Amino acid sequence: MTIGLADIEAAAARLAGQAVETPLIESPALNERWGGRVLIKAETLQRAGAFKFRGAYNRLVQLSPDERARGVVAFSSGNHAQGVALAARLLGIPALIVMPADAPQVKVAATRGYGAEVRFYDRLTESREAIAAEIAAQRGSVIVPAFDDPHIMAGQGTAGLEMMRQAKALGAVFDVVAAPIGGGGLLAGVATAVKALSPDTAVIGVEPAGFDDTLRSLQAGERQTIKPTGRSLCDALESPFPGELTFPVLLRTVAEVALVTDAEVAEAMRYAFSTLKLVVEPGGAAALAALLAGKIPTYGDRTAGLVLSGGNVDPDLFASAIRGEI
Amino acid sequence: MTIGLADIEAAAARLAGQAVETPLIESPALNERWGGRVLIKAETLQRAGAFKFRGAYNRLVQLSPDERARGVVAFSSGNHAQGVALAARLLGIPALIVMPADAPQVKVAATRGYGAEVRFYDRLTESREAIAAEIAAQRGSVIVPAFDDPHIMAGQGTAGLEMMRQAKALGAVFDVVAAPIGGGGLLAGVATAVKALSPDTAVIGVEPAGFDDTLRSLQAGERQTIKPTGRSLCDALESPFPGELTFPVLLRTVAEVALVTDAEVAEAMRYAFSTLKLVVEPGGAAALAALLAGKIPTYGDRTAGLVLSGGNVDPDLFASAIRGEI
Repeated sequence: MTIGLADIEAAAARLAGQAVETPLIESPALNERWGGRVLIKAETLQRAGAFKFRGAYNRLVQLSPDERARGVVAFSSGNHAQGVALAARLLGIPALIVMPADAPQVKVAATRGYGAEVRFYDRLTESREAIAAEIAAQRGSVIVPAFDDPHIMAGQGTAGLEMMRQAKALGAVFDVVAAPIGGGGLLAGVATAVKALSPDTAVIGVEPAGFDDTLRSLQAGERQTIKPTGRSLCDALESPFPGELTFPVLLRTVAEVALVTDAEVAEAMRYAFSTLKLVVEPGGAAALAALLAGKIPTYGDRTAGLVLSGGNVDPDLFASAIRGEI
Repeated sequence: MTIGLADIEAAAARLAGQAVETPLIESPALNERWGGRVLIKAETLQRAGAFKFRGAYNRLVQLSPDERARGVVAFSSGNHAQGVALAARLLGIPALIVMPADAPQVKVAATRGYGAEVRFYDRLTESREAIAAEIAAQRGSVIVPAFDDPHIMAGQGTAGLEMMRQAKALGAVFDVVAAPIGGGGLLAGVATAVKALSPDTAVIGVEPAGFDDTLRSLQAGERQTIKPTGRSLCDALESPFPGELTFPVLLRTVAEVALVTDAEVAEAMRYAFSTLKLVVEPGGAAALAALLAGKIPTYGDRTAGLVLSGGNVDPDLFASAIRGEI
């Protein structure tokens, strides 16, 4: 079950007036630094602070009245939680979110702020899938996956569709488009839109070093699961394997995967603060980190599109990043 | 010597391809909080991080070859300095900036980064006007005022012109437009554009409490000078009197002046960080502070335009603000 441009266009129609058409931002200073043209899709400015609202709303709005009444369950370290919680509130659907006990406070508070019920679990000893499945069975609720769902993928793809239209309005053509990879929902959606409209554009995924499951899977030609040996600064991208539905899309569309270190991500957060004046969370800064670290090469006069995918970051962590303490 | 819409349109033509057409950003969360529609002109995303580049470039690009060769001098606590320094670099003009010794480090470093020479002065014992005049006389340089110049005012007005066009494209009509007041250059320019295109829109200026020279001047019907008893968090807005050229424009166009406290400004910076995901400096957050503090009243279904005028803030100060230490 894969997705095509038509699914993304249908999702865009459902999201019209609900999602923010986030701006495609250009910074002459960043152009100069990279040595080309960089257009930033600022999904940090999306509702609930990340692209996740797109997929969540596209999924929830297609539930039947009966399904809506029984509510939805999701598990997420944060941004998907907020996306589902907000979409559920807008549609009058009860939502329960299973979150790790160590999720960033700002994401927990926002999820509750949208009216969702939160159930914590221990990342090391409990299975969030099992907890969510049990609650869903008890309540007859629909589980809303974070990425492995065609409606979620199509919803995230609307960010890519907008990028293509916005670039066209500027007279720009992307040589390369880069976005972060957690489970691959964002990149699968964006890549589908980009490759459908501009087959020559190279799609680059960005993973945190130590969570290179997608890179390994692409190299192997089949899904690989990694055993993380530590945490990443990019809490939103700590996925141990690509999705069952997202991986075939990535295999077909992704030209390259860049890996970024915590230090490179922190540097990108500082750059976004001091030069772009944008608040970006670690995972959201991954593509910018790759570009600033020279991992998205420019040859002459290239045009790159970057997805800044989210801006939900605890004040203490952000303060540490901009003060150079990370 | 005042300005009209034609001057602003001419400035916009000069700035095309040089200034960033900054996005007009909408946040459903902010709309809900205010109880109306709020469209934010993010001049934080302008080149050099503030609207000031607009006026500076519009002034410098009109210098004769002979004037360009002799260079320019400006005095500024920061954003005007950066705007002039960057415009001068782009045009190949030598620039010297007279800055207070206690100017935010980030603004000093950026000014030097654009290749300008910096001359410090003591805010309490020296006159920056006298220093600048002396240097200008020695070198035969043109002094570029921060606000009291028709080309500067017209340049800043291009932000207002863009707001009007961008709002129109969204099908929105501003009931009110609010912008901060330092010397009044930004507000004079913006108000001229707004009132020319939409006479019924109310223009609101925002000053820091303790630096209410424009409010007092408008009440008196003539320019008043205040004696500040302390500093404001809004380093960019610490002007003791409105400009000779800006004041008559403000007298004709401004409906109301709102005053904001340091605490309200810090709260607006936190809100911009946590909800809007935008980095805003204290002075740049003044209009948002007024709105969040209930000083821009909404009645039913109003539409407000806010200028977020700058984002050049030291990491330590920003960290304190978002951690609630201010």
